[in-house]
Amino acid sequence: METVDIKQPVLQLNDKLAKENRENFAKHGVYVLNILASPGSGKTSTIMATIDALRDTYNIAVIEGDIASNVDSERIAKLGIPAVQVNTGGACHLESDMIKRAVDQLDLDNLDLILLENVGNLICPVDFDLGENAKVMILSVPEGDDKPLKYPGVFQASKAVILNKIDTLPMFDFDQKAFEDHVHALNHEVPVFPISATNGQGVDAWADWLSKHIEDAHAQQGE
Amino acid sequence: METVDIKQPVLQLNDKLAKENRENFAKHGVYVLNILASPGSGKTSTIMATIDALRDTYNIAVIEGDIASNVDSERIAKLGIPAVQVNTGGACHLESDMIKRAVDQLDLDNLDLILLENVGNLICPVDFDLGENAKVMILSVPEGDDKPLKYPGVFQASKAVILNKIDTLPMFDFDQKAFEDHVHALNHEVPVFPISATNGQGVDAWADWLSKHIEDAHAQQGE
Repeated sequence: METVDIKQPVLQLNDKLAKENRENFAKHGVYVLNILASPGSGKTSTIMATIDALRDTYNIAVIEGDIASNVDSERIAKLGIPAVQVNTGGACHLESDMIKRAVDQLDLDNLDLILLENVGNLICPVDFDLGENAKVMILSVPEGDDKPLKYPGVFQASKAVILNKIDTLPMFDFDQKAFEDHVHALNHEVPVFPISATNGQGVDAWADWLSKHIEDAHAQQGE
Repeated sequence: METVDIKQPVLQLNDKLAKENRENFAKHGVYVLNILASPGSGKTSTIMATIDALRDTYNIAVIEGDIASNVDSERIAKLGIPAVQVNTGGACHLESDMIKRAVDQLDLDNLDLILLENVGNLICPVDFDLGENAKVMILSVPEGDDKPLKYPGVFQASKAVILNKIDTLPMFDFDQKAFEDHVHALNHEVPVFPISATNGQGVDAWADWLSKHIEDAHAQQGE
């Protein structure tokens, strides 16, 4: 029996278009974040808190990935921020051709930052480069401190880890020290930002990290 | 360019082995649940609460699916319940051959109920029949009441929906009526069981539903 390896060709095509996306973003000096998390961990709320912290300084757009619905892009659009909804129609992750088409609807010349909200899933999106500058993941307190043990790939791939819903720590048996130890066992230097997207706690430190990376993207464009 | 459809052959092989699993379970009168949920929605805690409610009446075993780690099977084994860990090594769902091999480690003659905890993922496991009697999904309150809009497939495929962590309702902006309406728009007759796996609230109603289905499996074996 012949074995057909379908994953490699799919990833090769994806990576080719991701490279084009990355070159396009770099040419325009736009910094792009690929945000990964489980369903319901607060991706959209974190994006909204990030917009709130940075919109006076930077021009921001959002690309929302979901299997179905436009619930999230409507929430973003209400803030007066350009938002493009991508419905994957069943696929468990965004791919770089979807991003390419979504970006065509944005005015890159007038943007500093694009936030890509991936499909809610800790597994499939990890393998798919979208041309982003960095993957960032969000884990929320109610999900539990053992998640790095069960989903190591996403913690290894992320340039920053946001721990969301820290306002609910008193309700849950979540050991923050143990969580950070598990994360750093997988990814030694990665910063962990404990935040509450709903009450704003900790968002400033996260926004500072992101601002530095946006500035670096601007500086590199000028070189 | 030739297009290779890899999904259909993979699913066909999976479905063939699922059929064999199903015949094996039926022969032994064992009822099998395939439990789907996001990471951190309380799958293992719900399984433990279910064991607590039913272990005096039925012989139960658990098969734990995870990308990595044996955290969950260790929790179950501590209860004195047979537990088999399946590590998918990256795959975002269990497949029927994994279940077939795990079941080989169990004594089906002396079991009434097998609880399969799938990988934490609302998308990929939906397509893969494992030979179970029913898929059941768990959504937890912190994930939000809009999840049926974003992940319709899993709500459509489930024979029962468990709403877990209802003890945290006061902390979250979760509209239980809206959630149930969204669920029933996708799956008209499906029962929704609001529970708290940690404090036991609502578990009796869920356990009653499950008991009836175990009894049906027993009755059908005798026919």
